[in-house]
Amino acid sequence: MPISVPQRILVAPSGFKESLDADSVASAICAGIRRTLPGVRIDVAPIADGGEGTARILADAAGGRLHEQTVTGPTGLPVRAQWAEIGPRDSRIAVVEMASAAGLSLVPRDQRDPGATTTYGVGELIAAALDAGVARILVGCGDSGTCDGGAGALQALGARILDADGREIGSGGYELAFGRGLDTSGIHRRLAEVEVVLACNPHNVLTGPQGVARVFGPQKGASPEQVQELSDALDNWATVLERHGGAPGADLRTGMGTGASGGLGAGLAGGIGAVLRSRFDALLDSGLSGIDLDRRIRKADLVITAEGSIDFQTPHGKVPAEVARRAQRHGVPVLALAGSLGEGAPSVHDVGIAAIASIIAVPMPLSEAVANGAELLADAAERTMRMILLGGAVSARSGHKRRKKAS
Amino acid sequence: MPISVPQRILVAPSGFKESLDADSVASAICAGIRRTLPGVRIDVAPIADGGEGTARILADAAGGRLHEQTVTGPTGLPVRAQWAEIGPRDSRIAVVEMASAAGLSLVPRDQRDPGATTTYGVGELIAAALDAGVARILVGCGDSGTCDGGAGALQALGARILDADGREIGSGGYELAFGRGLDTSGIHRRLAEVEVVLACNPHNVLTGPQGVARVFGPQKGASPEQVQELSDALDNWATVLERHGGAPGADLRTGMGTGASGGLGAGLAGGIGAVLRSRFDALLDSGLSGIDLDRRIRKADLVITAEGSIDFQTPHGKVPAEVARRAQRHGVPVLALAGSLGEGAPSVHDVGIAAIASIIAVPMPLSEAVANGAELLADAAERTMRMILLGGAVSARSGHKRRKKAS
Repeated sequence: MPISVPQRILVAPSGFKESLDADSVASAICAGIRRTLPGVRIDVAPIADGGEGTARILADAAGGRLHEQTVTGPTGLPVRAQWAEIGPRDSRIAVVEMASAAGLSLVPRDQRDPGATTTYGVGELIAAALDAGVARILVGCGDSGTCDGGAGALQALGARILDADGREIGSGGYELAFGRGLDTSGIHRRLAEVEVVLACNPHNVLTGPQGVARVFGPQKGASPEQVQELSDALDNWATVLERHGGAPGADLRTGMGTGASGGLGAGLAGGIGAVLRSRFDALLDSGLSGIDLDRRIRKADLVITAEGSIDFQTPHGKVPAEVARRAQRHGVPVLALAGSLGEGAPSVHDVGIAAIASIIAVPMPLSEAVANGAELLADAAERTMRMILLGGAVSARSGHKRRKKAS
Repeated sequence: MPISVPQRILVAPSGFKESLDADSVASAICAGIRRTLPGVRIDVAPIADGGEGTARILADAAGGRLHEQTVTGPTGLPVRAQWAEIGPRDSRIAVVEMASAAGLSLVPRDQRDPGATTTYGVGELIAAALDAGVARILVGCGDSGTCDGGAGALQALGARILDADGREIGSGGYELAFGRGLDTSGIHRRLAEVEVVLACNPHNVLTGPQGVARVFGPQKGASPEQVQELSDALDNWATVLERHGGAPGADLRTGMGTGASGGLGAGLAGGIGAVLRSRFDALLDSGLSGIDLDRRIRKADLVITAEGSIDFQTPHGKVPAEVARRAQRHGVPVLALAGSLGEGAPSVHDVGIAAIASIIAVPMPLSEAVANGAELLADAAERTMRMILLGGAVSARSGHKRRKKAS
């Protein structure tokens, strides 16, 4: 009865939001695997989803450098934000992490009004990268706390948004209702030669029933009245951007990714000609050295991915679904670990995740699970590896019995 | 890449105390397995541990009949208790479930004083079985709420326990302090021809530092003073039993199982010559048709066992450990599902359980886990089977790669 244990495992998890970053998740999983298979080769690939931690993950993976700098935060107060510089001297890429300059976690809970926050700091980060001489800029768009259509970012880059009287409008999404014109004559001069790519959730669009104000406004803290006001303001902003003509032929209202980061997608596409790409295409196939996920999947006998919560939303573009999509192409089996298995978790089997397991093993409150995430995750990885090895033993046993019967 | 899925699975769980009986546990596991492997052959063997549910489990397994009858409960109030009648007409076996007549769950929480409760109802059940003409009696001893040294049971069978003045002592463990003699002249006449076997936890002994009053008194509701009083009373009771001479050569103080069910072991051994056997030997190897666990294990590719809580205590004679011990003899892999994986759960790997998984998959309070036990268990069984199949696929893949490399 030959039992073959996995020789090489790829650990490719997301971070667990509000608990563990992707590196810590990967480390905990590795620790659990090694308790069961001390000698196995483990390849570690924490996966950035464009949100919090993206700059650091890509800098680590590609051997880049992380810059920190003080910018205007989403509420106007200064924050320390990050961007990564990656690649050889003559073709450096900047990874700008939107969430570090204007993320939801930077907005105190009692100030969560997405019509009042600004992406100004994101523009400042882009400007810093331009000043540093990079050849290309990749903006990660997840976890935003804003809904200003990217107006703040454009302003930080030198654009002026004018009202009916030719005066500059104020800060935040509500002010977009007063916009009548966009003047980019004073825009950062290097934007003429540097490509800006946004890594977007392709499902996020600017306006209409699935528009960003309606879909994300409430979870960013907007009341129903505020959602309506923001929707109208973004509608008007789309008209201003269209009239500006900076993105000929593009659908800035319902085109894919136009609603990313509260409309940053539409703003940068219409204002400076930024390219909107599906986030994993942008982040994983960006040509950044060290990221080549597909090559690493091909070499593995087993891929382990993970996310904080696996539920009915997971198949729709979350990290485990993307990892599984790629692994399926190469015929490599995938399992997913989760901080919590919520409603509809088994739907992930439809997108190629063969098996799932939770890190929770005793009745406990969420706070306890969050506080002990790394330990619980290592224990879960150990249990899972034991189950995988047992599966190999069972397969060998039943195969042997069948052959015996046949002979 | 040949992947062999299990052809035949044995589901051999314990009940989940205070949540699901062993049948319900087995059914839920089967439901979960079938979601993943609709065509697999499943053999279901709920395992009785001698405690609650034992009579029904054995009656079901062996095609026997369950009798219900009103007896004196542990606090003196009447209760409906159960015994099972199993086997062919001329060699019928009675399975008497101690817990159904004097179990801890029959004692209201505010009346939990183990020195005051009685096993009288257990004697009444034994008498009923004797009256019904059975050839042998098997008494399951788990989950008791008493500590009367079996005195109540002996009294119900016709024995008299006398004090220094030759008067009968009262009911309950404390009264044993006054015992000076045991008169079995009026004992049920069929006990002369019927063998009584007790299925005991062998670790339970009557007296000494590991005596039943000290080890179980507190969890049955005794204060430190009550524990001491009970210990002294049981010491005196051992002297009375020894003087009676009903079990020549037997160690009624620290012999294996003498402390079972609060000393019922010592009482029935010393008083009516009952045989004390290790519970799984008695219950699983009793020659009861339909129970033959070892034969059923041998036929399986995989054994799934389960218990309410798997923790550091599990290796010490709990159902999953016993199932694993037997499966190891036949080289059949075993996995265990648990309502909760407590402190020290991985210690079960040392007794042959290859892998473990919990039914808990999201942060939740214990009450919710108990209320939804069956559903959570089915979901966990499904996840586990998927992990097992994935293990088979990984094994096939890595084996194939290795062979390719070698050739």
